Amino acid sequence: MNPDIQRERENATFNPDLLTYILDGGQEKTRRRREIEAMVISDPDFQQEDPNFLSRSERYEAAVRKSAQMIMKLREYGISDPEEIYNYKSCVHRGGPGPLDLHLGMFLPTLLNQATPEQQETFFMPAWNLEIIGTYAQTEMGHGTFIRGLETTATYDPSTQEFVMNSPTISSIKWWPGGLGKTSNHAIVLAQLYTQGTCHGLHAFIVPIRSMSTHKPLPGITVGDIGPKFGFDEVDNGYLKMDNVRIPRDNMLMKYAKVEPDGTYHKPPSSKLTYGTMVFIRSMIVGESSRALAKSSTIAIRYSSVRHQSEIRPGEPEPQILDYQTQQYKLFPLLATAYAFHFVGQYMRETYHRITGDINQGDFSELPELHALSAGLKAFTTWVANSGIEVCRMSCGGHGYSHCSSLPDIYVTFTPTCTYEGENTVMMLQTARYLVKSYRQASKGEQLTGIVSYLNEAQQRLQAQSVSSRPTVVNINDLASLVEAYKLRAAKLVEVAAKSLQGELQKSKSPEDAWNNSSIDLVRASDAHCHYVVVKLFAAKLAEVGDTAVHSVLSTLALLYALHGVAQNSGDFLQAGLLTIPQLSSVSQRLKDILAQVRPNAVALVDAFDYCDEMLNSVLGRYDGNVYEHMFDWARKSPLNRTEVHQSYHKYLKPLQSKL
Amino acid sequence: MNPDIQRERENATFNPDLLTYILDGGQEKTRRRREIEAMVISDPDFQQEDPNFLSRSERYEAAVRKSAQMIMKLREYGISDPEEIYNYKSCVHRGGPGPLDLHLGMFLPTLLNQATPEQQETFFMPAWNLEIIGTYAQTEMGHGTFIRGLETTATYDPSTQEFVMNSPTISSIKWWPGGLGKTSNHAIVLAQLYTQGTCHGLHAFIVPIRSMSTHKPLPGITVGDIGPKFGFDEVDNGYLKMDNVRIPRDNMLMKYAKVEPDGTYHKPPSSKLTYGTMVFIRSMIVGESSRALAKSSTIAIRYSSVRHQSEIRPGEPEPQILDYQTQQYKLFPLLATAYAFHFVGQYMRETYHRITGDINQGDFSELPELHALSAGLKAFTTWVANSGIEVCRMSCGGHGYSHCSSLPDIYVTFTPTCTYEGENTVMMLQTARYLVKSYRQASKGEQLTGIVSYLNEAQQRLQAQSVSSRPTVVNINDLASLVEAYKLRAAKLVEVAAKSLQGELQKSKSPEDAWNNSSIDLVRASDAHCHYVVVKLFAAKLAEVGDTAVHSVLSTLALLYALHGVAQNSGDFLQAGLLTIPQLSSVSQRLKDILAQVRPNAVALVDAFDYCDEMLNSVLGRYDGNVYEHMFDWARKSPLNRTEVHQSYHKYLKPLQSKL
Repeated sequence: MNPDIQRERENATFNPDLLTYILDGGQEKTRRRREIEAMVISDPDFQQEDPNFLSRSERYEAAVRKSAQMIMKLREYGISDPEEIYNYKSCVHRGGPGPLDLHLGMFLPTLLNQATPEQQETFFMPAWNLEIIGTYAQTEMGHGTFIRGLETTATYDPSTQEFVMNSPTISSIKWWPGGLGKTSNHAIVLAQLYTQGTCHGLHAFIVPIRSMSTHKPLPGITVGDIGPKFGFDEVDNGYLKMDNVRIPRDNMLMKYAKVEPDGTYHKPPSSKLTYGTMVFIRSMIVGESSRALAKSSTIAIRYSSVRHQSEIRPGEPEPQILDYQTQQYKLFPLLATAYAFHFVGQYMRETYHRITGDINQGDFSELPELHALSAGLKAFTTWVANSGIEVCRMSCGGHGYSHCSSLPDIYVTFTPTCTYEGENTVMMLQTARYLVKSYRQASKGEQLTGIVSYLNEAQQRLQAQSVSSRPTVVNINDLASLVEAYKLRAAKLVEVAAKSLQGELQKSKSPEDAWNNSSIDLVRASDAHCHYVVVKLFAAKLAEVGDTAVHSVLSTLALLYALHGVAQNSGDFLQAGLLTIPQLSSVSQRLKDILAQVRPNAVALVDAFDYCDEMLNSVLGRYDGNVYEHMFDWARKSPLNRTEVHQSYHKYLKPLQSKL
Repeated sequence: MNPDIQRERENATFNPDLLTYILDGGQEKTRRRREIEAMVISDPDFQQEDPNFLSRSERYEAAVRKSAQMIMKLREYGISDPEEIYNYKSCVHRGGPGPLDLHLGMFLPTLLNQATPEQQETFFMPAWNLEIIGTYAQTEMGHGTFIRGLETTATYDPSTQEFVMNSPTISSIKWWPGGLGKTSNHAIVLAQLYTQGTCHGLHAFIVPIRSMSTHKPLPGITVGDIGPKFGFDEVDNGYLKMDNVRIPRDNMLMKYAKVEPDGTYHKPPSSKLTYGTMVFIRSMIVGESSRALAKSSTIAIRYSSVRHQSEIRPGEPEPQILDYQTQQYKLFPLLATAYAFHFVGQYMRETYHRITGDINQGDFSELPELHALSAGLKAFTTWVANSGIEVCRMSCGGHGYSHCSSLPDIYVTFTPTCTYEGENTVMMLQTARYLVKSYRQASKGEQLTGIVSYLNEAQQRLQAQSVSSRPTVVNINDLASLVEAYKLRAAKLVEVAAKSLQGELQKSKSPEDAWNNSSIDLVRASDAHCHYVVVKLFAAKLAEVGDTAVHSVLSTLALLYALHGVAQNSGDFLQAGLLTIPQLSSVSQRLKDILAQVRPNAVALVDAFDYCDEMLNSVLGRYDGNVYEHMFDWARKSPLNRTEVHQSYHKYLKPLQSKL
């Protein structure tokens, strides 16, 4: 153990295990998670060379091999709880994606949710036993977040009782689905349904794309890999072009909508049914934001505790770079953010599970708010985490740029979350639509419920303010007061956006143009709303923490998170009259004090995330802090060092010398 | 030509060629640059497969091949002007790095600047003819920006008149130099010189590392590639460990410092000589910041003009995504920033060349200010560009994540600029040191010259303010007034930092602790200072623009750049009393108006950067806008599609089916 990092652990004021239990949701869950991790890590079938040393094709192949092993072992060990499967899978792929992800995460669940009992009988068991390997093909080359724009067609032919599937244009080629390029032999295809001469909008169809015996593409199918990407080397994101591909009528998923043999169409019961799934997926993405920041800050903080550089005092040994205030200012707010987002993700999943019961009873009352909120929170957290990973990477100096740090890999694996499952700006605008609607209701005196109810208070406060011009000023040492300030900032920015929209409506040709011309303000309002929710949930979580030492360190992090946000958005708080100009310098001073307070617990706080070395796969983030020896070992094993002299010397450099 | 993008070009209000001439520094320079580009692009020897389809080793090999070809052709065509060589090389490597970069950019120039005439005779011609291929080995595994901490030793042995080179620890292993791993047979090594029992600090030594006949590592030398990185696949960044490697006394570069045969040491004339080189390199990096943003915004804006998505008005065709205000708000400020940084880089190079004459006359008076400023500007521009590239990439939706967009490659190639040639935070603090020193001089009533002279005015203004409390408020429609506001903001933040430092000095144990405890404020002050310089130089450039239409569009961009910065940092401007709260909403409104004003010229403004398709290598950024067909072509050529069925199917998936 590196003595620097050992000393850090000795100096911590709390027991990191207790914090780990809180993160996992209980000691027993931590125990089981660790047990599963140990099972995977010690399993010789899951050993592999560092993926950074492999070609794209080799990385894909290694991932297929591990995915196949995983399916076998999950059955062998009888692991069937979804959370345990998730833990097992995370560990097998070291937190990264795999080629069977869409088979397991979309194809099978969609069959369960949208297939009739007869269809389940036909498709589910073969899919369960991987004779059918499926993916979910929605996105097209020209169409992403706006799914109504999809162009793929499914035209019903009653004479043969088949659907004729077509990709009528280049931009309609299915593009991006994971596992589509090489792995899958079936796809659930989203297409515009035409029957009896009418288009009925998007429906889902099971389309066989490769032969179940030879795995070769079937007639009319053009399928392949979309080529190399920033990351996701393990996944064969694919394209699919269909030319008059005929599938039986029974291959349309008909649990809700139906096409009868003669082509008569029955529409599904109008439905917010998909809202629940979307909320669940977004809560998972918020969790990903937290995990990405947790891993990145673990690596950066551990490394900063063993890296010595420059001098604070002449003649003395070079200090740990974690002692630099600027380094703390980069890393500790992100550490606090990782905790904040973890609690937000936890809250979303809990709320989702709580109201799932209501949904099954047909009570959708809480769902629209949660759905609207989840869109914004997905965008808010992924944007923050996305830039935060890079701050962590660059805080490691040059070595952060090496793949041995694992930080480039964390970034390229994470960054698609800003785009997929709803592009972030579009998501922010979805939340804004709900906020503006709620604001209008509040203006009319309607009583709002749930998390937007502050728009009522704000309305009252605004009216009160016209009487007394004395604004509410925040107490920067009090978390409850800061939560209040975030709330009022959100209220102010929702008001600004709603008024901007109102103004545009008065001068615009159409409501759509007015919306577009206010969209900068609308995104800002959503952002402030989400920021408020995060601060609020972090503060609320503290009430659940029993251990005094852990409570104390988490409270400090919550205060850091809240105050840092105030400093970063000081213009908003000044504008809303929540902060005075002299208070700004108190905020700066207080932030510096808090950084110093976090400093002795920084390593313990990342230890509490409990990432074992095998999961991090980072030379810089090693638990034992022995970075340099292992960096040298890693480099020597890398592919360019397999020969002493690279062949390009003999082919190009040596001959050149004689020509010059 | 895609009709959307054609229409964009028809609607532009100015002639982009005229703007290109301004960027290049004259019509003749544009002509010659295009000529060189055409020469390289049409040359069959420089054709190659898309590097994204190659393995790391193949990419390195292709780069060695092209570099070798390039050396031959530069001689064949007699291209010797440094700027023309730069253009030629940029084009050969498509703006990316090459394995001979350090040989050409560091090894040869260091020989010219620091070798004695006799040493030049021995080493220069062999190096010129690539018998000697060299690199510059400074950074060590444990030591980067703080070069005094380097551990490598060169101990003089008078008995044999040799230096004994050693890497005494793991952390002293040379790490990162480009071309060191496989390409070079020599390295200029920075090491602590020991002679007659005394350490004399860092000096440069020429160390043979590989055999000139077999290219195998020499005895005592451990050399290799440091392994895969985020980018720079073309470069063999390397490690070098030396165990008692003996080199002749003549291999120490002795133009300035000297070691006599008996070991007597003569120190160099104390020198700011390296300042000039550093200023030049940093001005090049500022130029890189501009180019990175120019390329990224070219790709994103062209693509946004042909991509249609969602609906503004129901029933109407999906609009170009460039019509979305949020998209404009992402891209147009970055477009303006690309122009701003281009002019800053131009100014730095011109100033450097102007005062180079003075330097050669021994007049260093202007150099410290330029040196201090260049550190901050390097950090300021690279940070902005770094995050800006990613904003451009994500504004392209999912396709930005594909290597076919070229945006991932632009990012990974650019991002090291935040770390190399001085880590950005350290650079910001260097500038801050100069600012605080200047502030103190101004406080004492000393008259400052040059760009920091505003600290005098601010001093006077502060004294005046105590009489009249009326602050100067900015006119947000007037660029000159905005420049003034940026200046006063910088003055305010320099004052805040200086006072914070003063306060810490009163309570800290040491000046070094006080510095560290003020460093957040110091970085902010530097940042504000650099921002002021950028706005000022952009505004100043407008005076040089003759053409009315071009002047008009550039003025709009300058206003956009300045106002966007005000909006992003509104807290600072409010704090300094330069902006009133009611003005904040005028700023938002004005920004929206300007976005609408830039909109019709956006494509022409990126066309003016004049990147040909071959340089961009981006399917999304194609000049003709025909994105989708070419994306499909590109994907079909990618390596995973060389076989219809991937071997992993037969190896793992097929066997699995029978086991389940």
